[in-house]
Amino acid sequence: MAHRVRVIEDGSVTTTPGFEAAGIAAGIKADGAPDLALVRSAQSCVGAAVFTTNLFQAAPVVYDRATLHRNPTGLRGVVINSGCANACTGDQGLRDAEATAAAAAQHLGGASGDYMVMSTGVIGQLLPMDVLLAGVETAARGLATTVEAGHRAARAIMTTDTVPKEMAVQVETETARFTVAGMAKGAGMISPNMATLLVVFTTDAIIDHDLAQQALLTAVDASLNMITIDGDMSTNDTALLLANGEADMPRIASAQSAEYAAFCDGLTRVAVGLAQGLVRDGEGATRFIEIRVTGAANRAEARQIGMAVANSALVKTAIYGQDANWGRIVCAVGYAGVPLDPNAVRVWLGELELVRDGGPHQIDEERASEILAQTDIPIRIDLGRGDTEVTVWTSDLSHAYVDINAHYRT
Amino acid sequence: MAHRVRVIEDGSVTTTPGFEAAGIAAGIKADGAPDLALVRSAQSCVGAAVFTTNLFQAAPVVYDRATLHRNPTGLRGVVINSGCANACTGDQGLRDAEATAAAAAQHLGGASGDYMVMSTGVIGQLLPMDVLLAGVETAARGLATTVEAGHRAARAIMTTDTVPKEMAVQVETETARFTVAGMAKGAGMISPNMATLLVVFTTDAIIDHDLAQQALLTAVDASLNMITIDGDMSTNDTALLLANGEADMPRIASAQSAEYAAFCDGLTRVAVGLAQGLVRDGEGATRFIEIRVTGAANRAEARQIGMAVANSALVKTAIYGQDANWGRIVCAVGYAGVPLDPNAVRVWLGELELVRDGGPHQIDEERASEILAQTDIPIRIDLGRGDTEVTVWTSDLSHAYVDINAHYRT
Repeated sequence: MAHRVRVIEDGSVTTTPGFEAAGIAAGIKADGAPDLALVRSAQSCVGAAVFTTNLFQAAPVVYDRATLHRNPTGLRGVVINSGCANACTGDQGLRDAEATAAAAAQHLGGASGDYMVMSTGVIGQLLPMDVLLAGVETAARGLATTVEAGHRAARAIMTTDTVPKEMAVQVETETARFTVAGMAKGAGMISPNMATLLVVFTTDAIIDHDLAQQALLTAVDASLNMITIDGDMSTNDTALLLANGEADMPRIASAQSAEYAAFCDGLTRVAVGLAQGLVRDGEGATRFIEIRVTGAANRAEARQIGMAVANSALVKTAIYGQDANWGRIVCAVGYAGVPLDPNAVRVWLGELELVRDGGPHQIDEERASEILAQTDIPIRIDLGRGDTEVTVWTSDLSHAYVDINAHYRT
Repeated sequence: MAHRVRVIEDGSVTTTPGFEAAGIAAGIKADGAPDLALVRSAQSCVGAAVFTTNLFQAAPVVYDRATLHRNPTGLRGVVINSGCANACTGDQGLRDAEATAAAAAQHLGGASGDYMVMSTGVIGQLLPMDVLLAGVETAARGLATTVEAGHRAARAIMTTDTVPKEMAVQVETETARFTVAGMAKGAGMISPNMATLLVVFTTDAIIDHDLAQQALLTAVDASLNMITIDGDMSTNDTALLLANGEADMPRIASAQSAEYAAFCDGLTRVAVGLAQGLVRDGEGATRFIEIRVTGAANRAEARQIGMAVANSALVKTAIYGQDANWGRIVCAVGYAGVPLDPNAVRVWLGELELVRDGGPHQIDEERASEILAQTDIPIRIDLGRGDTEVTVWTSDLSHAYVDINAHYRT
């Protein structure tokens, strides 16, 4: 039997057995919205994480990297605040991250080195530690294993997000049955290689640390690294996987095992689901744009082309305006930096083959308008160079994007 | 005596002795705005040009590249149309470019290989050749050496530009006195390495072809390649220099000569003036942003940092919103790809040193708001890695940008 991945309706991080969560309004955000989340496991967890590649790494990123290095198999949970990114905050920021983890240990059990911390919000401001530490104590009292508790956590990590992003799947193989769940936030500063993007995955799978890390990289590469909203990469991006090993299954100890393949598949499904959710909720987004790049010589060039088109302000505004301005698509393909033959490139909007042999082909403005009037916009670009394909996702560039970002701090 | 460069008020391409120009409404644009320009020299010209690096090269770019290669010292002029880019138009597009040059020869004298052509406007549509050819004949009858004729040409090459961009300088050395003038168009698709950017420089300097080409590259590298409006690079970018050799001076035949230095200086002054004019007239621009990157190890990394900040949608919207959100600046510095030490980076807004030692320094929101209320926004970023500095220019990202680009074709 091949493995099976089934989506669990109304899933949350607490859908995975053995995990509790909480989400409260601690008072970090001026408007009183929820701003503090906890996720805790009853058992010690194997951890895996990927972080932003921005050189300005926020204090929680620096702290988490060191913590995971010291304690890759004994993690108990994570404290996440929104409203303040604790980025560009120097030594004090790092001390605040440590103090947050210490408070988690005090109220949730275990040692301070068992807890990760994440922050998202405005860069360059110190965390209001009195409010935050009081919040950790309050949130700890509200921890619950219910799906509602997971939903509250997913809401508490939102900033300019308008809806929480959550997903859970159940994975079954001949020998194993386990859950993979996740929550994510991020609507601006979303870009290649992650952004003000925080993701927490929970699983009860039993898996070695190095394989968990490898599976996370694989899943992120096909999901979070394939989306862009505005091309900006943040200082705080973190995706964390906590595996508490409570499932009834043999340990996943080989990358060649059927169970590892199943785990990768389940994790990727959740990661893609969350990534698509992030794009759909992109700042000011009115369209969900799927750009499938086919006929590439390799994944790197396929992604390069897809991202050039996805990040083009002219493509994004044209789609916002429901204008089938395909010239802007080929223009972005042409400057992406891949040494392709322009005459071999083909471009489709839905089923319409717009470009072929270096010029317009099947131009049907009426049908194009119909396609562009829908929420989901399918674009395909064939490079005619090979057999590799990659899909990237992005949103359009609207007036609302400018509204949101012109006055984010004020 | 060192050379002297003096700006000539109210300059145009016809400020240079020996050049005539015309600009008319030929009927290419549906709204009846001027859309066809001619620039002609009485004498044969040494030509030099730089073109877009986009792989989808518009037909006029392909045509001009070949023409300049065959005839580097015998050019007579250029025909420029706006409203239709003649890009992604296959073999027919190339035939149309050739026919345009042939019409120029017929009505202006000389051979078809003596004329360059340029087009800007919508990608993927064929030129309306009957209208265009009739227009060339009409425009030829209107050729004049007056500055007003130059102004008419500068207006006829505009698309979403709101004002024409023109400049002229007079250069004097001990042995020479000559003029360098130019006109440019482009307000969207402006990006590193040129864009839907058309520039024509005229000069009466006497200069060898290879030195003219070298001087053009030098001038463009410090001007047109240092601006970005939306990060999109077009299929049509062309900057053309026509040197008719009518000045009373010794031939510039050595890159070590004082006259060559003076020529480069004058050409760069005009190129920077036009480039800044393009940014000030950027689509929807409400701010002119000057980003000076200092303390870099070399020009390439300085430009890379400057362009990352200049292209950040988050930085541009923050400045539009008059929000001193410096975190977005350091964030862009951090993902630009230069391996710098974040703690060595310093950022100034005007005279305010916002960032130092990896964190906020001289934060004065009131003073920052005053600076951001002005039209010209000076930002300085010091990398602490060396002695090289570079300046790039960009505009902000406003609601009007989205307006203009969501409905460009409709």
